[in-house]
Amino acid sequence: MGFGDLGKRLLVGRKLRSTQLHETLLPKRIALPVFASDALSSVGYAPDEIFITLSAAGLAAYAFSWKIGIAVAIVMLAVVASYRQTVQAYQSGGGDYEVATVNLGRPAGLTVASALLVDYVLTVAVSISSATQYAATAIAPLQGHQTIVAVLATLFVMTMNLRGIRESGTAFAIPTYLFMAAILGMAAWGFLRYFLGDLPQAETANLHLASEPTFSGGLAGVAAVFLILRAFASGSAALTGVEAISNGVPAFRKPKGRNAATTLLLLGAVALVMGLAVNVLANLMHVRMAESPATQLLRPDGTPVGPSYHQAPVISQLAAGIFDHFPAGFYLVAAVTGIILVLAANTAFNGFPVLGSILGRDGFLPRQLHTRGDRLAYSNGIILLAGFAIVLIVAFQADVTRLVQLYIVGVFVSFTVSQTGMLRHWTRLLRTEQDPAARARMHRSRLVNAFGLCVTGLVLIVVLITKFTHGAWIAIAAMAVLFILMRAIRGHYDRVAAEIAVDSEDDFMLPSKVHAVVLVSKLHRPALRALSFARASRPNVLEAVTVDVDSEETKRLVEEWDQHGIPVPLKVLASPYREITRPILDYVRSIRRASPRDIVMVYIPEYVVGRWWEQLLHNHSALRLKGRLLFTPGVLVTSVPYQLRSSRIAARRAERPWRAPGSIRRGGPRRTEEQRTGTRR
Amino acid sequence: MGFGDLGKRLLVGRKLRSTQLHETLLPKRIALPVFASDALSSVGYAPDEIFITLSAAGLAAYAFSWKIGIAVAIVMLAVVASYRQTVQAYQSGGGDYEVATVNLGRPAGLTVASALLVDYVLTVAVSISSATQYAATAIAPLQGHQTIVAVLATLFVMTMNLRGIRESGTAFAIPTYLFMAAILGMAAWGFLRYFLGDLPQAETANLHLASEPTFSGGLAGVAAVFLILRAFASGSAALTGVEAISNGVPAFRKPKGRNAATTLLLLGAVALVMGLAVNVLANLMHVRMAESPATQLLRPDGTPVGPSYHQAPVISQLAAGIFDHFPAGFYLVAAVTGIILVLAANTAFNGFPVLGSILGRDGFLPRQLHTRGDRLAYSNGIILLAGFAIVLIVAFQADVTRLVQLYIVGVFVSFTVSQTGMLRHWTRLLRTEQDPAARARMHRSRLVNAFGLCVTGLVLIVVLITKFTHGAWIAIAAMAVLFILMRAIRGHYDRVAAEIAVDSEDDFMLPSKVHAVVLVSKLHRPALRALSFARASRPNVLEAVTVDVDSEETKRLVEEWDQHGIPVPLKVLASPYREITRPILDYVRSIRRASPRDIVMVYIPEYVVGRWWEQLLHNHSALRLKGRLLFTPGVLVTSVPYQLRSSRIAARRAERPWRAPGSIRRGGPRRTEEQRTGTRR
Repeated sequence: MGFGDLGKRLLVGRKLRSTQLHETLLPKRIALPVFASDALSSVGYAPDEIFITLSAAGLAAYAFSWKIGIAVAIVMLAVVASYRQTVQAYQSGGGDYEVATVNLGRPAGLTVASALLVDYVLTVAVSISSATQYAATAIAPLQGHQTIVAVLATLFVMTMNLRGIRESGTAFAIPTYLFMAAILGMAAWGFLRYFLGDLPQAETANLHLASEPTFSGGLAGVAAVFLILRAFASGSAALTGVEAISNGVPAFRKPKGRNAATTLLLLGAVALVMGLAVNVLANLMHVRMAESPATQLLRPDGTPVGPSYHQAPVISQLAAGIFDHFPAGFYLVAAVTGIILVLAANTAFNGFPVLGSILGRDGFLPRQLHTRGDRLAYSNGIILLAGFAIVLIVAFQADVTRLVQLYIVGVFVSFTVSQTGMLRHWTRLLRTEQDPAARARMHRSRLVNAFGLCVTGLVLIVVLITKFTHGAWIAIAAMAVLFILMRAIRGHYDRVAAEIAVDSEDDFMLPSKVHAVVLVSKLHRPALRALSFARASRPNVLEAVTVDVDSEETKRLVEEWDQHGIPVPLKVLASPYREITRPILDYVRSIRRASPRDIVMVYIPEYVVGRWWEQLLHNHSALRLKGRLLFTPGVLVTSVPYQLRSSRIAARRAERPWRAPGSIRRGGPRRTEEQRTGTRR
Repeated sequence: MGFGDLGKRLLVGRKLRSTQLHETLLPKRIALPVFASDALSSVGYAPDEIFITLSAAGLAAYAFSWKIGIAVAIVMLAVVASYRQTVQAYQSGGGDYEVATVNLGRPAGLTVASALLVDYVLTVAVSISSATQYAATAIAPLQGHQTIVAVLATLFVMTMNLRGIRESGTAFAIPTYLFMAAILGMAAWGFLRYFLGDLPQAETANLHLASEPTFSGGLAGVAAVFLILRAFASGSAALTGVEAISNGVPAFRKPKGRNAATTLLLLGAVALVMGLAVNVLANLMHVRMAESPATQLLRPDGTPVGPSYHQAPVISQLAAGIFDHFPAGFYLVAAVTGIILVLAANTAFNGFPVLGSILGRDGFLPRQLHTRGDRLAYSNGIILLAGFAIVLIVAFQADVTRLVQLYIVGVFVSFTVSQTGMLRHWTRLLRTEQDPAARARMHRSRLVNAFGLCVTGLVLIVVLITKFTHGAWIAIAAMAVLFILMRAIRGHYDRVAAEIAVDSEDDFMLPSKVHAVVLVSKLHRPALRALSFARASRPNVLEAVTVDVDSEETKRLVEEWDQHGIPVPLKVLASPYREITRPILDYVRSIRRASPRDIVMVYIPEYVVGRWWEQLLHNHSALRLKGRLLFTPGVLVTSVPYQLRSSRIAARRAERPWRAPGSIRRGGPRRTEEQRTGTRR
């Protein structure tokens, strides 16, 4: 690197570094779409679930749909209000996990973490499945192949994340604003047509609904209450993703807390309006949906529609009706809804590493997750996430209704635990706070969170009761497994920490002598390099060692050794069975036995190659030997790399730019890696 | 290790070592079964193939079956006679590969090696498929599930080999001698009953054969000649495995060559008698077999037997008839035939590493294959072999007849090339030999090999012509791929050797100074150990380096550093994006830039754990960093291991006994590993 380069690098590098963090923070108009896709996308399936669940009791039950919609809206308001408190009180991005851990202790924090991890998997499975439904509605040939399409879509999102998407606020902003515009525009046009008396019926309006035998006598009794509660629980899927903003506070511009709270309010308002509009329009247009459409939906002549019937989602049905003279409108709505759902799945791929990083820091997951820019750690997480989502998609055949049964438990577990934590938070602050104005604010906040706790707790109970046997048990079992696993990992780290803690002056003792052993197989440059480096480190004893695997080669080596007059003695170890590892291990152990206070330093020449298949052809003996030597106390293993020409390929590959998914939501560096690399030779 | 232990170990260890090599050599009575299973087992399917191929021309064609049997027997005699020359001339165990390489050059050797590698895969596929057929004949519920049974059987043999079978001569001797006794006993009993006029008909004797349209006018013309040649080619499957002994000469007692030749003669005689006996009996008992039994075999009323018909192998049919009043005899014959076939598959698992080791030595396969006792190398080979065999079994639905079409090419390629090599061998020797007696012997030997070459060459041409489109092209394509691959590997090794060859005095230069860097994350025992070891090696510059990933932890580290008064300066590297690798890389590179003639020695403390899941929780940053540092010239990476308590588990596991499959056939050490380990603590 010449002086000019250096100067340029320092200049550009420094300039970027100082301004960067500022640059990457999100203004509210960008933050809204970045964090909204997850929450808003649920309008793509949550209203459907209300109608589908109610369908069991026949058409009469549909009368409850808008009431349930309003109940969901109230819960939404409560949750938004509560999280407005959270984002202002906890601005570090730890979200519910932090609130729970700080206020309620480690088990509560872990409970929230398990719930959220399970939820990320379900977000992917549900969103992708729903997106596939929209795709199949718009593109008829996909019908009947939803499972495979959903699996491919998951693999696609996974691959994009593995490659490292060039995220930007705009990438989120355009589709999200388009989605809002499309849905709200459609709703406005629909209502206009309604008031003009021109609103057409949905395509399914002329279908009849065969109610289940339980409800043949109409909607009454315990079963009816249960059904309505279950419809409400399913509709609450609309609330998933609201909490995401609490993990993203650091990405906001200052004042971070206030801006996040405002964005949250906007988000809540939009979600609420969209959800209610869809719900009301579905009622006005007499949309018919059923849990088992093939048998439950009857044609006007009384025959069931049969297994070839494709049940279009509510929004599709609305768009098809409202834009009956304008098919482009229908395709636009279906397309942006599908895109927003895929974007929602993508946010799970971003959120997972963020949470994993926090859990890694606290020792509940492998610590490597804590360091950023670590491609391998992210890759593993992304593959795991996609893998589990695919298992769910295949197991439930990409059926959104059945997946939603598993979905909402996790969200409401973390809502409830987090609200409890917030309650404690305010109570604790109130214990020390003197200023009456502040106290009044805190009292008000505590009231909001108490209300939030009541509502979310109640919903959690409803969800647990009505959905446990419908599949929620699977989510709960998964949470339990994660909980136990994370405790075990932390336990392991704690035990190791205790084992390696410094507790006596012995730990500071110096070994008396260094006995260096250079492994040599042939007299080539890598061996010479290892020898000269070992000589440069001036050990007390230095010898070269070779294993006599092939007597002719050994003879040749000894001759060459003498020819070149190498000033290091060469020791030949016998190996009657052509092994390499064991003779060396035995020899090193014998040195240790002879003088236990010395250290033995083993220099191993290593080829550095650039292509994966070259790896298969080199260094195996070296690697295996290294692995075994590590188990021998008092032995150090020094790799002396010899860079073959092809190694430059790998060196270049390692420098290639890459950005961790999800960094935009954490207020992390943007376009940093590339620029820094670009200025380096 | 106490003195008693040491004494015992030295005693027991030494005693074994000196006597061992003698002990493990095989007397002829054990060598015969060890090397015979492969060749003898083909009597389980080779006669069948003659009848099956002829079946296309209807019952009249069966008249040719015994003539074809005799032709195969003649080829067998020629091959045995030729290989008796080979085993005496080449006693190193290199077999056909060595003969071809030495006499005809590298491409010929590689051709033989490719052919043999492909053949090992086919040995497994054919033998296991045939064994499955026998099992399905004896155990009716297995019928129709042969593919999955064959796959499971392959996985079983693979697993046994991965675990390291405790091989012994006896393990081969008992089933092989049992097999000989069962088949020869059955044949004797059958001929006795024939001469007493009491030989029953085979179960299939009353079935008719629908000939193919081509042969509706009887057996005449080019098509007929072609068919008979093809039946002969299929029957030549009986010769597979004869060459195995040429790789096993070192395992024989002295005089190795003579003993191997005698064993080969015995083997040939037994195989010949068994094959002809089965062939003749099948004719006497009117066994009927067909290529597509479901449609080709007709009941007496003219209806085809249909897809549920299970075609029993010839030996099963003979046993069922000959032992019609003694069902135990039938089950014994079926069982030992099945076992000998599995044993034959097992020998491929043994032969593969032997050949791999030789190819590894010569640089055509990864060199690691050359060192014995290397479990990983063997494991990879075993898994590859099983994997390819399973692909073939599944692709051909464990159908022996279709697999045999691929099988014989490889064998006859290596036969032919090897005989050509032997011809050259004698011609070369004759050029210098003066002694008339020796010259006469050589002339005789050359004549034998010339005859062998003619016969095997002819068979190869027949096989190529009659079977190419029936599947032999797959085997040939696989051989071509292997040939190219092995040449490419050798080319790579040659290029690397040229790149690392010592060519100037610069290679002997010493670096001027050693700059040691100890990586520290916390002040715990592993870090202290790394520090004290680094200090003991007295570098010119020594400093500790930490990356500031978490400012609080860094602060704590710096404080503790001062508290303990550690006499090494601690350098804190900034890491705004919580990366570890890049700041260290940058720092190390800056040292190199400042003084390019120095070497930088990076000490990395490493945890050594014992359980695989603990590996997932530790050392990731260290490993990644190491991987990157290797690409930086002039940098040495020293791992300072800290053995956690759990590491003992892995240390014990590594010491567990294991013996490479196939060592019995190489005259290698027997029961060595175990006994040496048993006496070590």
